[in-house]
Amino acid sequence: MSLDTDIALAHRLAEAAGAAIRPYFRGEIGLESKSDTSPVTLADRAAEEAMRRILAAEAPRDGIVGEEFGAEREGASRTWVLDPIDGTTSFVAGRPIFGTLIALLRDGFPVLGVIDQPILGERWVGAMGRPTTFNGAEVRTRACRALSEALLATTSPGAFSDHAAEHFMALAGKTAHRRMIWGGDCYNYGLVASGQIDIVCEDSLKLHDFAALVPVVEGAGGTMADWHGEPLHAGSEGHVIALGDPARLEEVVEALACAH
Amino acid sequence: MSLDTDIALAHRLAEAAGAAIRPYFRGEIGLESKSDTSPVTLADRAAEEAMRRILAAEAPRDGIVGEEFGAEREGASRTWVLDPIDGTTSFVAGRPIFGTLIALLRDGFPVLGVIDQPILGERWVGAMGRPTTFNGAEVRTRACRALSEALLATTSPGAFSDHAAEHFMALAGKTAHRRMIWGGDCYNYGLVASGQIDIVCEDSLKLHDFAALVPVVEGAGGTMADWHGEPLHAGSEGHVIALGDPARLEEVVEALACAH
Repeated sequence: MSLDTDIALAHRLAEAAGAAIRPYFRGEIGLESKSDTSPVTLADRAAEEAMRRILAAEAPRDGIVGEEFGAEREGASRTWVLDPIDGTTSFVAGRPIFGTLIALLRDGFPVLGVIDQPILGERWVGAMGRPTTFNGAEVRTRACRALSEALLATTSPGAFSDHAAEHFMALAGKTAHRRMIWGGDCYNYGLVASGQIDIVCEDSLKLHDFAALVPVVEGAGGTMADWHGEPLHAGSEGHVIALGDPARLEEVVEALACAH
Repeated sequence: MSLDTDIALAHRLAEAAGAAIRPYFRGEIGLESKSDTSPVTLADRAAEEAMRRILAAEAPRDGIVGEEFGAEREGASRTWVLDPIDGTTSFVAGRPIFGTLIALLRDGFPVLGVIDQPILGERWVGAMGRPTTFNGAEVRTRACRALSEALLATTSPGAFSDHAAEHFMALAGKTAHRRMIWGGDCYNYGLVASGQIDIVCEDSLKLHDFAALVPVVEGAGGTMADWHGEPLHAGSEGHVIALGDPARLEEVVEALACAH
């Protein structure tokens, strides 16, 4: 399949996931449900099932790794990685800053990524060799002249293991840390692509959490890496940094290496 | 003036502030500005000026306390308290979960409050003796049967003084803390009123940060207090708790009193 075909397919996946998720947001359905299953889990499953149905029909040879229903055709050279609701805590709290993440990996490296916010109707699409778009318009990351001016985001202090938290704090101390961004999950990476946030630094991300983010951030001029500065791939351990300005990568890696 | 008149005036204030703020969101204007003043400061000032112009015309005897331009007619029995952009960090990052806060105090106690999100077009309005509304529809907080099931929110771990952070952590440890909500400022209190979040606990809030929240949360069936469980008023020290279910107040105050 051509990249254009893949991008069109990714849009259809995002639309199907959004249609499945929206009715559960802020408890419009699910609260009356007699099931013990939480609304967010129901929404998660409904969205992943909707995406898997489309992939089964349109890309039956591709592999799938989904947050809810595991892996199919492992080892396929093309693999779709699906996270129907990234940011379940925001979803549960009624905050429209969660997202549906859709990535296509080739030989383990993400070449296409979508971050979709189905309540606000906001969608970032990144694809190898193309400019990232936000609702169809090209976006660019912004320059960051000094680490001390960088706006840094991370989802939760509780998401870091003790040791990783020390490294994170060493980085945070070198940024404009009076203005740190907390919460937000994938949405923060979209805002890196849009030139609103300079750095996101997180720990303990899984493949379905980070695969879609890489083409979005990199297609907008930024860079993503692990905490050693190495490219992210299917086997990465989940220590993730995203930078709007790749010129700051070395300093960020150095700062993360220092812990007290 | 009657409460209906005051509510109508508060709506007009919110509309004027939103119109002043929206052009600055995500840098649509302000980035080209040659001024050294940041876009968020320009938006903050423009919104407060717009609200003050309306108050000068329609409520010339009332006092005003504004975040940007200070106090007028201090000691008036009716005082409007204005925070044009609560959640400046979210605003700066392009996250539409900041808010404009408008409160009316009578003799130091908040009797009317508005939380307005001008990008999403979301507005909570609370007024003494009336049900809180969200975009015109009545909302209710939810019951919270046990503190261990409570969804707790706070804006930033860095906003606590060291000592206050210990007390906060003592509370957090007794809630459903694997699902804590970070970031969000006033927006979290609106979500308490809408029955999405159970508790918000914060430190170092100023009068303009909390005055508008009280009528919104209480008109929806919740309660707000300081960390000792006392009602909030113009002289409160800024240790704030909001609970969707007032039945949990005593336990929350006890939990906050324990620090290790």
